[in-house]
Amino acid sequence: MYYHDKRLQYPVKVDSPDTIYARMLQQAIGGIEGEIRVCMQYFFQAWGNRAPTTKYRDMLLATATEELGHIEMLATAVALNLENAPTKVQEAGAADAIVGAIMGGENPRHIAEGMLHKTLLSTGMAAFPGNSDGLPFDMSHVYASGNIAADMYCNVAAESTGRVLAVRLYNATTDAGMRDMWSFLIARDTMHQQQWLAVIEELSGHAGTLPIPNSFPQEKENQKFNYAFFGTSADGSPPPAGRWTQGPSLDGKGTFSVVQNQPMGEEPVLGPARPDSGAESQQIG
Amino acid sequence: MYYHDKRLQYPVKVDSPDTIYARMLQQAIGGIEGEIRVCMQYFFQAWGNRAPTTKYRDMLLATATEELGHIEMLATAVALNLENAPTKVQEAGAADAIVGAIMGGENPRHIAEGMLHKTLLSTGMAAFPGNSDGLPFDMSHVYASGNIAADMYCNVAAESTGRVLAVRLYNATTDAGMRDMWSFLIARDTMHQQQWLAVIEELSGHAGTLPIPNSFPQEKENQKFNYAFFGTSADGSPPPAGRWTQGPSLDGKGTFSVVQNQPMGEEPVLGPARPDSGAESQQIG
Amino acid sequence: MYYHDKRLQYPVKVDSPDTIYARMLQQAIGGIEGEIRVCMQYFFQAWGNRAPTTKYRDMLLATATEELGHIEMLATAVALNLENAPTKVQEAGAADAIVGAIMGGENPRHIAEGMLHKTLLSTGMAAFPGNSDGLPFDMSHVYASGNIAADMYCNVAAESTGRVLAVRLYNATTDAGMRDMWSFLIARDTMHQQQWLAVIEELSGHAGTLPIPNSFPQEKENQKFNYAFFGTSADGSPPPAGRWTQGPSLDGKGTFSVVQNQPMGEEPVLGPARPDSGAESQQIG
Amino acid sequence: MYYHDKRLQYPVKVDSPDTIYARMLQQAIGGIEGEIRVCMQYFFQAWGNRAPTTKYRDMLLATATEELGHIEMLATAVALNLENAPTKVQEAGAADAIVGAIMGGENPRHIAEGMLHKTLLSTGMAAFPGNSDGLPFDMSHVYASGNIAADMYCNVAAESTGRVLAVRLYNATTDAGMRDMWSFLIARDTMHQQQWLAVIEELSGHAGTLPIPNSFPQEKENQKFNYAFFGTSADGSPPPAGRWTQGPSLDGKGTFSVVQNQPMGEEPVLGPARPDSGAESQQIG
Amino acid sequence: MYYHDKRLQYPVKVDSPDTIYARMLQQAIGGIEGEIRVCMQYFFQAWGNRAPTTKYRDMLLATATEELGHIEMLATAVALNLENAPTKVQEAGAADAIVGAIMGGENPRHIAEGMLHKTLLSTGMAAFPGNSDGLPFDMSHVYASGNIAADMYCNVAAESTGRVLAVRLYNATTDAGMRDMWSFLIARDTMHQQQWLAVIEELSGHAGTLPIPNSFPQEKENQKFNYAFFGTSADGSPPPAGRWTQGPSLDGKGTFSVVQNQPMGEEPVLGPARPDSGAESQQIG
Amino acid sequence: MYYHDKRLQYPVKVDSPDTIYARMLQQAIGGIEGEIRVCMQYFFQAWGNRAPTTKYRDMLLATATEELGHIEMLATAVALNLENAPTKVQEAGAADAIVGAIMGGENPRHIAEGMLHKTLLSTGMAAFPGNSDGLPFDMSHVYASGNIAADMYCNVAAESTGRVLAVRLYNATTDAGMRDMWSFLIARDTMHQQQWLAVIEELSGHAGTLPIPNSFPQEKENQKFNYAFFGTSADGSPPPAGRWTQGPSLDGKGTFSVVQNQPMGEEPVLGPARPDSGAESQQIG
Repeated sequence: MYYHDKRLQYPVKVDSPDTIYARMLQQAIGGIEGEIRVCMQYFFQAWGNRAPTTKYRDMLLATATEELGHIEMLATAVALNLENAPTKVQEAGAADAIVGAIMGGENPRHIAEGMLHKTLLSTGMAAFPGNSDGLPFDMSHVYASGNIAADMYCNVAAESTGRVLAVRLYNATTDAGMRDMWSFLIARDTMHQQQWLAVIEELSGHAGTLPIPNSFPQEKENQKFNYAFFGTSADGSPPPAGRWTQGPSLDGKGTFSVVQNQPMGEEPVLGPARPDSGAESQQIG
Repeated sequence: MYYHDKRLQYPVKVDSPDTIYARMLQQAIGGIEGEIRVCMQYFFQAWGNRAPTTKYRDMLLATATEELGHIEMLATAVALNLENAPTKVQEAGAADAIVGAIMGGENPRHIAEGMLHKTLLSTGMAAFPGNSDGLPFDMSHVYASGNIAADMYCNVAAESTGRVLAVRLYNATTDAGMRDMWSFLIARDTMHQQQWLAVIEELSGHAGTLPIPNSFPQEKENQKFNYAFFGTSADGSPPPAGRWTQGPSLDGKGTFSVVQNQPMGEEPVLGPARPDSGAESQQIG
Repeated sequence: MYYHDKRLQYPVKVDSPDTIYARMLQQAIGGIEGEIRVCMQYFFQAWGNRAPTTKYRDMLLATATEELGHIEMLATAVALNLENAPTKVQEAGAADAIVGAIMGGENPRHIAEGMLHKTLLSTGMAAFPGNSDGLPFDMSHVYASGNIAADMYCNVAAESTGRVLAVRLYNATTDAGMRDMWSFLIARDTMHQQQWLAVIEELSGHAGTLPIPNSFPQEKENQKFNYAFFGTSADGSPPPAGRWTQGPSLDGKGTFSVVQNQPMGEEPVLGPARPDSGAESQQIG
Repeated sequence: MYYHDKRLQYPVKVDSPDTIYARMLQQAIGGIEGEIRVCMQYFFQAWGNRAPTTKYRDMLLATATEELGHIEMLATAVALNLENAPTKVQEAGAADAIVGAIMGGENPRHIAEGMLHKTLLSTGMAAFPGNSDGLPFDMSHVYASGNIAADMYCNVAAESTGRVLAVRLYNATTDAGMRDMWSFLIARDTMHQQQWLAVIEELSGHAGTLPIPNSFPQEKENQKFNYAFFGTSADGSPPPAGRWTQGPSLDGKGTFSVVQNQPMGEEPVLGPARPDSGAESQQIG
Repeated sequence: MYYHDKRLQYPVKVDSPDTIYARMLQQAIGGIEGEIRVCMQYFFQAWGNRAPTTKYRDMLLATATEELGHIEMLATAVALNLENAPTKVQEAGAADAIVGAIMGGENPRHIAEGMLHKTLLSTGMAAFPGNSDGLPFDMSHVYASGNIAADMYCNVAAESTGRVLAVRLYNATTDAGMRDMWSFLIARDTMHQQQWLAVIEELSGHAGTLPIPNSFPQEKENQKFNYAFFGTSADGSPPPAGRWTQGPSLDGKGTFSVVQNQPMGEEPVLGPARPDSGAESQQIG
Repeated sequence: MYYHDKRLQYPVKVDSPDTIYARMLQQAIGGIEGEIRVCMQYFFQAWGNRAPTTKYRDMLLATATEELGHIEMLATAVALNLENAPTKVQEAGAADAIVGAIMGGENPRHIAEGMLHKTLLSTGMAAFPGNSDGLPFDMSHVYASGNIAADMYCNVAAESTGRVLAVRLYNATTDAGMRDMWSFLIARDTMHQQQWLAVIEELSGHAGTLPIPNSFPQEKENQKFNYAFFGTSADGSPPPAGRWTQGPSLDGKGTFSVVQNQPMGEEPVLGPARPDSGAESQQIG
């Protein structure tokens, strides 16, 4: 179960409220690279964790709980960037008249409002659990497979795209308060990338975890194709060489090779449609 | 651009058509762990690839093209498992009468039909681009971040959850044809896990890629918290020890430590609602 | 604006309530082939209709209004099929004990309830605006392009897949009341297919409407490829002959031919990633 | 069943067409606070209404039918605001040259077009059944629970957020025609809030309806916690006092108290993963 | 920010694991009436709360934090109900042979597996953040309008449909452990209904909050229609009488009346399509 | 199975990169009128095709494979239009200062960036599989009914709305490279409209295919209503005359007539709620 403290994990200050930046921040809340996703992903991985030890459950709970506080920080940042946002088309006043004249009626501040419709029209100048396009977060992005190695790579993927997004948002602003917040959140993403990879290492790395799942007897795989790179060039030209085209495989269990893709199967022929299946009569044999 | 061959990449045979297994196979077509996802993910990563070399674009195109053939194989497997599926409630005949009597009117074959409604009612006994719950695949699961290391981990995650699913589907059937198909597809998943990790290794591994993105100057991170594991226990008890709580970090750029989470920020106070913002009058300061 | 009559457009009777059939009927309410879709599609086409005449707006309004009554009929059919549905696992009583014994604990009526969860758990034994998988209808399936010929073909497509579904639902039951309802609704689908195609005919058929939109000067099209069928066989074998590979085009404005697909463009080369774009440093030229 | 009149329920005039306002109006059509939602919600509540009387079914049908006319009014308002909207980047002409020069190539009218893409690209300058972000309405927002008191509160919630939105849209424009339309629609929202609350009052108010559902024997509830407010402060500080922390409960069936949240359960321990479940071997006990 | 305790808020015991009940429980996790929804709804209302006091923010945070623990309880209940669930078609053994013979090949345990595909195929026998149809929760159901009275009614609606669902799930099982868990959660729903209504009362009830938002000057409403019930019968018959057709309005600011709906507007006539708008030439005036 | 060539089907050149046009192009990639949709629709129709001949399967495969190359062309066009897009708010430099002064702080280039958030924040200046609103493509728009005539009309609908979109995008730009690309893609849409209609003609046109499905014995339809247009005017005024109100039907199997809609059914009366169904006690008979 859970507890709260009314204070934030780290200070959130906005020196110059910026309505567009508020919108961009939404990507870090409800985008697929955002904080709701990692928060819920770690919680569901924890709650469903099956293992001889509760150690990984504990670690996942701690980081999920931390991430909940990150959503809170970002929601606060959105609200602070929306302080004093316009609610009326006419609000900009005289300046608008000039610009309006130049542009023949189309009003840039008006445009800005249009862009803010989600917060203007729906939330009363506050954050919402969706991305910067206004798309609500959908929980199918909470990856929890029941395989701990697969889940760790899902988490590395989430923290990697998450830190890429955070860096882009850092670069997109010069507000000192916002940059300080990001210096903290980017640091946390660094650590979180580390910690999921550390689990892989603790499970003996590539040799101990690959191929995922490692509980499936590998002799049941087709042995001709499990370490072969398939080229698909129509003219048969070979693919460019890389670490994956030759040498030992990363798990030490095979040797990379290159195979030119060719059909091994036949043209599939399905039975004709049945008389009572709603097909056209011409389809019924 | 692309070409086709009418034949399949690998033989798809179904010895005993099984309508329920048809439904389960859908997860491997249109589930988030399925083939549409990896096919489209690799295509979009290829088409948007920015790098001094086109080498990775080429590799991504080849594997994306291969995956398109995997969707085709699975769609064929679904259709073959649906051959002779019932379209009428009464079809099962005399056997139903017995079961119907036992169960007081509720008819198991009837139930089976209900479960098959998607293929019975909507596709005319064929596959569809959705999962085993009938949920259409949604393209937000195509991860392509513009950062090659992040993308490779997204791909490892996809192939890991994909091989987990494939193994579960192998285990769920005893049909020899289906198991032969899976022995091939599982082998390909093994290789695909390898190849994306091989890119990481080619980019010099953890040291050469972490933290992702490695193009952000790490001195801009908050240095106190970028290699620290945060515990969140309400009673202050420390988290269990692991590879991530002590010792050098995996990228060789820091040392792990443990920090008990504490608020560093203040209680956030937002301004009152504006008079014209649609709030209740009690909210307006 | 709109009016209602408490009575139904056509009688809806259910002789033998059938909980599974209730679920199947949902596809005709909230499936993409269902009544909500056509109702809303015709309303939005009507409300946005731009033409020198309001004649098509009127026709669309009439049929949209009729379709609203069809949703009502089907919602009533669902509710009637759910009368007396079980709400407790134990409800089936003694018969269950027998079946339970045979099956080692898994109870078919229990299974049936699981299938009914949406109506059992969420609606209190009533219809909902979703399909037979429980997926809510999403309004992106309301096609209204602003081009009347395109819209008419969207409507023919909707009524064709709709009548296919209706026929499958007719075939799936032997309930006399349900079949009588379907005899009416299938008849209406017949008419609706006719009426949208009649608009095409009134607009002078293929010659008067193709290519859609016919307001774009066709000389701006690439003239080499606008009536050519492209083959994509990797081995260069020609596609099978059909009405579309030779002879005059249907609009009388061209002649069909066959072209073997070949790249006319170059390999695309995108610029390297920018330093501040969140890419890996290896991607930055 | 249903009838239509070609005329609108209330006049819709637009004095100064405004493409951005067209987009904002979409929120009132296909947003979750919008008219499609209430229209469909009341229809589905009516069609599935189970009660000893058809009185509530009748009321719901009348208001649902009225709401259909509101969608029509708003769709008309969108189309009228889009009359004369630009379809070409260059359309704004000379004024653009000035602004373009000022802004270094980025063209505000161009921007406006980008914002209008949905209507420019997809509908031919007409309304669509989605919100102001272009998100299609999804029917999962049609709340109809089978419990009449729960449904009435769902309706009050819908009309409250709906009137909040309407007020924001009133405030966002100075167009006299649009404001007249809103003066009518806001008045209707006032009445609709009243009428759903009047049903609660007719059912004897809080005492007659709470807790919802009132058909569950309240002695089966855990009696220690059904009128207790739980504080969750990590430091044990009590929550602020309010009407809900002391005094008689609103239904007259209990007394409010405050409880500091504490774990009453144990740490959950799930069984290890099964050998054939696709987990890593390290998870299998 | 937030803290966790490894123990559960209330004991979760399952006496007889039941795979179908596991699936039904998902509705209470990720259904629109479920715990993820209220948890996130209260958090976002708290984080965006604008008022002269932080009192309501505090209350919302406390209950949101409590709800997070409810998701955890239910996720644990799902996992415990899935202990020993079958992963192989053949697992049921000899009993299957008998049933299989009776039913001509369709295997009920097989059917059950099909129903469990989400947990069998995707989560490794654990809960997921979606409903009992496998539909992922989508965050558009997190209602937070920026108007505190509207939000309170959204919360009453959520807790009312939530308690209706909880009662249905209580009724659907006889497992003593599960019923004990529900006796607690149903009690909490009772309190939560109370507490949101208590906020309305603290804001002076109907008179102090209606019409929502009360900050809009009511004289701007069309005064003829703001307390009038509209009948829409095509034959002009009056609607049935109710609390909402006569007498004083609930807010004391008006008197209910009945109006028969009639068009006050004209037939809308939109301009013809523009030449360059992609319409058919017949639509261009 | 499939092959690739690194070169594009047709040249894609961008003379003047335009970030807003990049966004508009997304509609042609991941909009419902776009290339992902037709590509996947034709593939799934091919893979599930049931007929005495594989001829239609072959044709569908060829065109699906061609469409895959169209997605690639458009993805390349998006990336080329995003070359040199701004990543920093301050990038526009001095010009911004002027505009900023005029507009009181709201910065048009800033606005433009906000509009580009999807590509700026999520893809690193590349295309994504979603529409111009940032909405991911969802595969429920892949229509494949198992009825070949219905599917052909779905395809005509897709290519008609697709060509309407293509024409709008052609009209929206003056970039010579982009217009050349569109001259090719619009030509292909012309052919694709033709080829699906040619299948209908090959199946003997209206007489040979209508009503769809033609395998349902038409005598089971209600004969009074299958060629009758229903008017729904509340005042009983007749609908405007058209090809669909009189004369022979298009399939030669009936004669059009006009019927004024009237209720033929009764007011539906559902049973009261059951005691254990979670309804209010007032609903339980």
